[in-house]
Amino acid sequence: MNKILVVGSVAYDSIETPKQKKENILGGSANYFSLSSSLLVPSNVVGVIGDDYNESDLDLLKNRNVDLTGLQKVPGKTFKWSGKYEESMNEAITLETHLNVFEKFNPIIPDSYKDSNIVFLANIDPELQLQVLEQVNAPKLVGADTMNYWIQSKKDTLLKMISKINILTINETEARMLTDEWNINNAIEKLAAMGPQYIIIKRGEYGFMAYDKLSKELFVMPAFPVKNLTDPTGAGDTFAGGLFSYLASLKEWNFNDIKRACIHGCIVASFTVEGMGTDKIKSISLKDIQDRTKDYLKVIQVGNYSSSIEEVTSKKLNMHN
Amino acid sequence: MNKILVVGSVAYDSIETPKQKKENILGGSANYFSLSSSLLVPSNVVGVIGDDYNESDLDLLKNRNVDLTGLQKVPGKTFKWSGKYEESMNEAITLETHLNVFEKFNPIIPDSYKDSNIVFLANIDPELQLQVLEQVNAPKLVGADTMNYWIQSKKDTLLKMISKINILTINETEARMLTDEWNINNAIEKLAAMGPQYIIIKRGEYGFMAYDKLSKELFVMPAFPVKNLTDPTGAGDTFAGGLFSYLASLKEWNFNDIKRACIHGCIVASFTVEGMGTDKIKSISLKDIQDRTKDYLKVIQVGNYSSSIEEVTSKKLNMHN
Repeated sequence: MNKILVVGSVAYDSIETPKQKKENILGGSANYFSLSSSLLVPSNVVGVIGDDYNESDLDLLKNRNVDLTGLQKVPGKTFKWSGKYEESMNEAITLETHLNVFEKFNPIIPDSYKDSNIVFLANIDPELQLQVLEQVNAPKLVGADTMNYWIQSKKDTLLKMISKINILTINETEARMLTDEWNINNAIEKLAAMGPQYIIIKRGEYGFMAYDKLSKELFVMPAFPVKNLTDPTGAGDTFAGGLFSYLASLKEWNFNDIKRACIHGCIVASFTVEGMGTDKIKSISLKDIQDRTKDYLKVIQVGNYSSSIEEVTSKKLNMHN
Repeated sequence: MNKILVVGSVAYDSIETPKQKKENILGGSANYFSLSSSLLVPSNVVGVIGDDYNESDLDLLKNRNVDLTGLQKVPGKTFKWSGKYEESMNEAITLETHLNVFEKFNPIIPDSYKDSNIVFLANIDPELQLQVLEQVNAPKLVGADTMNYWIQSKKDTLLKMISKINILTINETEARMLTDEWNINNAIEKLAAMGPQYIIIKRGEYGFMAYDKLSKELFVMPAFPVKNLTDPTGAGDTFAGGLFSYLASLKEWNFNDIKRACIHGCIVASFTVEGMGTDKIKSISLKDIQDRTKDYLKVIQVGNYSSSIEEVTSKKLNMHN
């Protein structure tokens, strides 16, 4: 069985949406990733918490067989983020960030994690992402995410990190920013030229794009249509958790597996956004995922369109011959 | 053979994109629709032009068997629109609108058009859209589009028009505005409740959503990934021309045909945006459409994912049983 290591934030969030407001609820990329991943393959977490962290929030992951050996507990307060969403819910507006114990976070990989063959470097300082990579033995697959803040403040380190990974998952807006290229199709090629074989563009309610540099194949899919969008926080990390745990459940993978893994990630993320914070993602089962996957596949059901469209256009072409 | 009637604007546009600027080039919804439609089924045009209209622009359509009997020529200048696009190219910013001969446009349907069984009411004053509908005998299928201006200024008339049609094609932003509903999935249901059996949401570079009120089926697809996006003007009307001409080439239609027709419309529109104004759409052939349709179907190729995803998730579920 493949072992997944995830390094990322473990946090308490305060979130305001047009409909509701919640304070100090469980959040952070490592939590969303692990809740998602544990539906298929539990992850090994690297992160840091303060002495205010709730035991019940640790139990939530432990009960799902998530390994918390690499989660350091240090004196001080846990990382806190507060943000709000406008009506469109497209992008979070950060109101406050209190790094707290995260400020001096020095990721140390426990010996028991060192043979992890899948590593996901969630959106943290690219210097820390590199430090984690240096401590693992020989992972078969390394994925990473990033954000506008690091693109603006630590671009060189970020590029060094990106040159060492196999899969980059990144928001559409940040893909444009990092490549200085507005056309997302061209941005994808520029990102691939930075190193990773696979580029995954996260497009929120519009789904995702996946690109394989070797075959030059592109795969584009819409998101599952969610009617009760409640809070988009954590959708991207949930997606990544689904994606990498799907791959972890296979012995090897090609681009077709990446495609399927992305769809799986999309479906898990569609649950996350239906609740505030981790409310929904922590209450679903793999059976819920299976049912929604069936619904999703109906929404994108192309069937024999190829032949039908060709029939219509060929009939017309033949009329002229 | 089904006959398609289209009523819409015939115009000269001045367009500024981040890369180039063109003045007084051929435009207008009826032109884009007809250029697109004529690849499969030529349309019958209802519209108005001034005495400044170029003979060669008429020939362009005549050479494609488009019927211009219903295109009135009156003293004065042709409708002129000028607009610009920012880097994202998502939305046109209108700089100037000169209605000119369009201001007193009174659509008169020639007798030879009255048995048209497919009617498309492109985005014009909803009062004119209703006037056209009253003059046709008994169309089997009526589609319409609209825009923010009419939603704000003539909502009651617009709703009356929408209650009489079978297919509404509308931009995502305008769907939200018309229904006062941010969640697009909920907006679709509200639009369907206004009358039309089929709701088609145009999402620009993100593709489209199609909804069938009777079966409650939803179909969501990304757009063809265009690398050399040049000018989005006319994409929506090109899409509609593709959609309705595809349906016109069939004897009857169900939601599966609507899905295929939307994909066809999407492919034709992907050419329009590759040139300034009508430059590209007027130079392509049905063979180009066929080739790109094949490329598109690869980009959305889902294959046997259903069974593969279920295999992965079921294996995990069985481990616990």
